[in-house]
Amino acid sequence: MTTYKDAGVDIDAGEEAVDRIGETVRETFTPGVLADIGAFGSFFEPDLEDVDQPVLVSSIDGVGTKLKVASRAGRYDTVGQDLVNHCVNDIAVCGAEPLYFLDYYGVGTLDPNTAEAVVEGFATACKENECALVGGEIAEMPDVYGEGDFDLVGSIVGIVDKPDILQGDDVQPSDVLLGLPSTGIHTNGYTLARTVLFEEYSVDDCPPELGGESIGEAMLRVHRSYLRPIQALIESGLVKGLAHVTGGGLPGNLQRVVPDRCQTNIDYEAWERPPLFSLIQSLGDVPETDMRRTFNLGIGLVAIVRPDDTGRARERLEALGEMPVRIGRVHSRDDESGTAQ
Amino acid sequence: MTTYKDAGVDIDAGEEAVDRIGETVRETFTPGVLADIGAFGSFFEPDLEDVDQPVLVSSIDGVGTKLKVASRAGRYDTVGQDLVNHCVNDIAVCGAEPLYFLDYYGVGTLDPNTAEAVVEGFATACKENECALVGGEIAEMPDVYGEGDFDLVGSIVGIVDKPDILQGDDVQPSDVLLGLPSTGIHTNGYTLARTVLFEEYSVDDCPPELGGESIGEAMLRVHRSYLRPIQALIESGLVKGLAHVTGGGLPGNLQRVVPDRCQTNIDYEAWERPPLFSLIQSLGDVPETDMRRTFNLGIGLVAIVRPDDTGRARERLEALGEMPVRIGRVHSRDDESGTAQ
Repeated sequence: MTTYKDAGVDIDAGEEAVDRIGETVRETFTPGVLADIGAFGSFFEPDLEDVDQPVLVSSIDGVGTKLKVASRAGRYDTVGQDLVNHCVNDIAVCGAEPLYFLDYYGVGTLDPNTAEAVVEGFATACKENECALVGGEIAEMPDVYGEGDFDLVGSIVGIVDKPDILQGDDVQPSDVLLGLPSTGIHTNGYTLARTVLFEEYSVDDCPPELGGESIGEAMLRVHRSYLRPIQALIESGLVKGLAHVTGGGLPGNLQRVVPDRCQTNIDYEAWERPPLFSLIQSLGDVPETDMRRTFNLGIGLVAIVRPDDTGRARERLEALGEMPVRIGRVHSRDDESGTAQ
Repeated sequence: MTTYKDAGVDIDAGEEAVDRIGETVRETFTPGVLADIGAFGSFFEPDLEDVDQPVLVSSIDGVGTKLKVASRAGRYDTVGQDLVNHCVNDIAVCGAEPLYFLDYYGVGTLDPNTAEAVVEGFATACKENECALVGGEIAEMPDVYGEGDFDLVGSIVGIVDKPDILQGDDVQPSDVLLGLPSTGIHTNGYTLARTVLFEEYSVDDCPPELGGESIGEAMLRVHRSYLRPIQALIESGLVKGLAHVTGGGLPGNLQRVVPDRCQTNIDYEAWERPPLFSLIQSLGDVPETDMRRTFNLGIGLVAIVRPDDTGRARERLEALGEMPVRIGRVHSRDDESGTAQ
């Protein structure tokens, strides 16, 4: 097994594809990347000038079975973006600035074009988030992955000044929940979504409910990055807590950022549920409770703000082209009006 | 899909196994781990008191098809150690001190006992290397991984003071190559090793060449960590470059740490080749060149030292219980005696 190392990407594949991938990767490099040194690891020198107590924030994740949708649709340039954006959101909601990302691509037999599309996806999202793609590994394991199957894993490293860590300590009853729209299913709930949708449709089918979009297109919509709105809210000092809506849905993820004495009450009528979710619910006869605990249902990020700050937070977000929705409030756990949903 | 979060480990599994795994993980925590904060990421505060120009060093990797040997032998507590130690070595040879590790465990259907053994392996090696296991993800994907199949991915973050980055710049002709024994195949060459050995033997067979050890035991020997000898050599100022012998074997990895004007000449007779490698070679009729470019052949780490420092470096290593072997020299690329091997 020969390993090629180029711009931090180790690939057991042809050299030509490796060269192209190396170029794509280098385009993501930020000033902190020490590109020309280090034979066995990836080097990054963080700018600590304005950071008194640097804390590193990391996360590792996959995209789950959204990969199967990509395989079915033969479209491989989006799943890398999903993974980067998912990881970026996970650390950004804690107040961290993403620094760099590393990817792992496990596959049965490597198809260089697919690999290029996957890495292109990583690089596109890394550039958008100004997060350098400093390293990666492509592992060909025909005995582990079946024909056409693969897995993607991403690991992100970010930095936050310790006093700036945002974790919802100050959240209190009467605070307002401002939701930002998701682009689709993002990366959670694909086992349920696939089971229901592929029982009825192929990836190319365009059910009228989706207004012209195919099942594949709707299911592969890229998990968006909320980095810009998150940073704007944090800089303005208008946010007390932020929840990235992943596995567990709105209730599960909001509970992770409010103090134990609080609960959240979500008004699920406050926004229009995107048609893909309604289609899944009606086709699969999925109970509303399962929908709420499985999917983001159209809200991918929630900011918790003081009631008095709601207007300013909204304006700040709208100035970035965002469309915030007031989706509920924080209640005391003892307060009967605040039934956890 | 419900996600449980405990001590930084997200697991889509039963709560009981999660509790036990959480306990194991917490035992790896070092003072830098900020365990009680952060809902969506893992927090680590590095001690920067003696670091003027902090550079973060990262790596992401898998263990390749050593996983298949683990499955075949039904033994899951070693592969996690392989992965941690591999990652630790990769960043330590550049002069970095490992800070923390994150793992990803992709599997078809989760067996809690297997998961516990795997995470136990990660935790054991993390403790040995004083590298905190701060996060992880276990993803169950029955559509991606077949019955009994799984993949493991590890990501490590370490730190080095910029002037202390070790990359072999000063290596020059006549420098000496000191090798440290490997424990076995480590994590490279398993496709070849499995093809050859499993054609003839089952995991429980004990061919006389292995002196009582079974094929499974010999193949699953843990990829050792070289952190202590590496740190001792670096602290003593006696080492100019270090190579971790992974894919590419001795010649491939040494070439990564010597300047372009240099090459290395390895005396393959200088140490006794462990019997497992000879068995693979004779059974599979594998050409010597392929053996050298695929396997570590018994030497898992190489330190490059000045000729005058060889004795002291050797003593320093022997004081730690290591058994260094002089395996060759550095030559000028123009020097005919230094044929790259």
